[in-house]
Amino acid sequence: MRVDVLTLFPEMFDGVFHSSILGKAQEKGIVSLNAVNFRDYAGNKHSTVDDTPYGGGGGMVLKAEPIFRAVEDLLGKTEESSEELPTVSSGSGESVIEPTQRAPRIILMCPQGEPFSQRKAEELAGEEHLIFICGHYEGYDERIREHLVTDELSIGDYVLTGGELPAMVMIDSVTRLLPGVLGNEMSAVTDSFSTGLLEYPHYTRPVEFRGWKVPDILLSGHHANVADWRRKEALRRTWLRRPDLLNSLELTSQDAKWLKEFETERNN
Amino acid sequence: MRVDVLTLFPEMFDGVFHSSILGKAQEKGIVSLNAVNFRDYAGNKHSTVDDTPYGGGGGMVLKAEPIFRAVEDLLGKTEESSEELPTVSSGSGESVIEPTQRAPRIILMCPQGEPFSQRKAEELAGEEHLIFICGHYEGYDERIREHLVTDELSIGDYVLTGGELPAMVMIDSVTRLLPGVLGNEMSAVTDSFSTGLLEYPHYTRPVEFRGWKVPDILLSGHHANVADWRRKEALRRTWLRRPDLLNSLELTSQDAKWLKEFETERNN
Repeated sequence: MRVDVLTLFPEMFDGVFHSSILGKAQEKGIVSLNAVNFRDYAGNKHSTVDDTPYGGGGGMVLKAEPIFRAVEDLLGKTEESSEELPTVSSGSGESVIEPTQRAPRIILMCPQGEPFSQRKAEELAGEEHLIFICGHYEGYDERIREHLVTDELSIGDYVLTGGELPAMVMIDSVTRLLPGVLGNEMSAVTDSFSTGLLEYPHYTRPVEFRGWKVPDILLSGHHANVADWRRKEALRRTWLRRPDLLNSLELTSQDAKWLKEFETERNN
Repeated sequence: MRVDVLTLFPEMFDGVFHSSILGKAQEKGIVSLNAVNFRDYAGNKHSTVDDTPYGGGGGMVLKAEPIFRAVEDLLGKTEESSEELPTVSSGSGESVIEPTQRAPRIILMCPQGEPFSQRKAEELAGEEHLIFICGHYEGYDERIREHLVTDELSIGDYVLTGGELPAMVMIDSVTRLLPGVLGNEMSAVTDSFSTGLLEYPHYTRPVEFRGWKVPDILLSGHHANVADWRRKEALRRTWLRRPDLLNSLELTSQDAKWLKEFETERNN
């Protein structure tokens, strides 16, 4: 997968792109991460990328042209590389080029966007080329939204200075889903999310830390009892903290009994 | 405000802590940002910070001791600096130390946490000292949760490799609320969120870009009409994309008329 980020602060990405999972995924050749300063596409002598809004009012607005030109430059590179693809003959004898490259997703980071979710991460992980556009405390000229981007995404309802941190969040969550990126030990941790419940409590050595002990059941060696305890505690934590998650879950009859038990405990 | 981050990947923070608003806020002395590697507190010859879970299963669990020791070291530094505070005499003649420093907030980054929100950012912006604890694809020993932290927070329902990016997101959103951090031109942009609506469309030069024109009303110079158009388009975008936000909004009678108009347009 190829990922390009358009930003006025490419240096913000250095530490994140070269550490941990993202660094390893690049070393393995699974993903290529590239931060591009769209000020280089301003096309005017002062390298101006923003201007005051039509209709007046405070704030600045990112101009359409530098963003359009930067994206087109990135797409031009894509088209060049696709020229190397083999020509395939169709049944009718005509020569056609198989469309082996899908159109890139051009994703605008903005608070007005669709809320990012694990489902969206999975969808983006199936793409070949992602382009993230990061504004920075300015608005975007509406023509970027209307005529250039394929997606508008937001990571949550809080105000951030720019789209750079949201882009890093999305790139991390997408990259870790690509085949070969995570080792088995980490995949196992991820799997615990697939139950739809919050995680059960974890404990590791020592058995007693400052007088606080590990629950006896985890030391019992009785695997079925451990599994029951973990399911029950995951259910309890979800019920306490995120009851909204229970709505989209298929509960077993044992789960239902436990939920009744929690309700009874609360009412006593 | 002082902000400490406990992480196994302090280098991830370099680019973000030194760019843009966070870099400037530090230069102005408004905030001090500090990434600490808690592996330095492992206290064993192999610098081990994690171990296998009691009760079996995949994944690794972060040990309680290195995290406790790192936090206590940070708090120790706080107490030393408070020794420089003046001693104040109370009315009864006894010498007492005024508690001028509030206890720090110790915040665990975890998917099981309370969803982070703008309200939470505002709450944290009133603190003097924040400590963020970032796990990295491991679980936390439950005793950290039960006996050390004051808050557990999550930035959204998507799986990330570690707590580092969520900590950066929270630090950005909190820091930009501190007095003196944002210039006036940026505050104005932020204010547009305070309406509870998504932002209206923005346009800047040129009037025509590749055949796509700025709406005439924004060029009219008629301020009241511009204001009406912006309110209506902000309302329309919110109605289309995030109708959930309308529930917590006080609508004017004009807003209500516009909403009816949108409904009618959709049904025709």
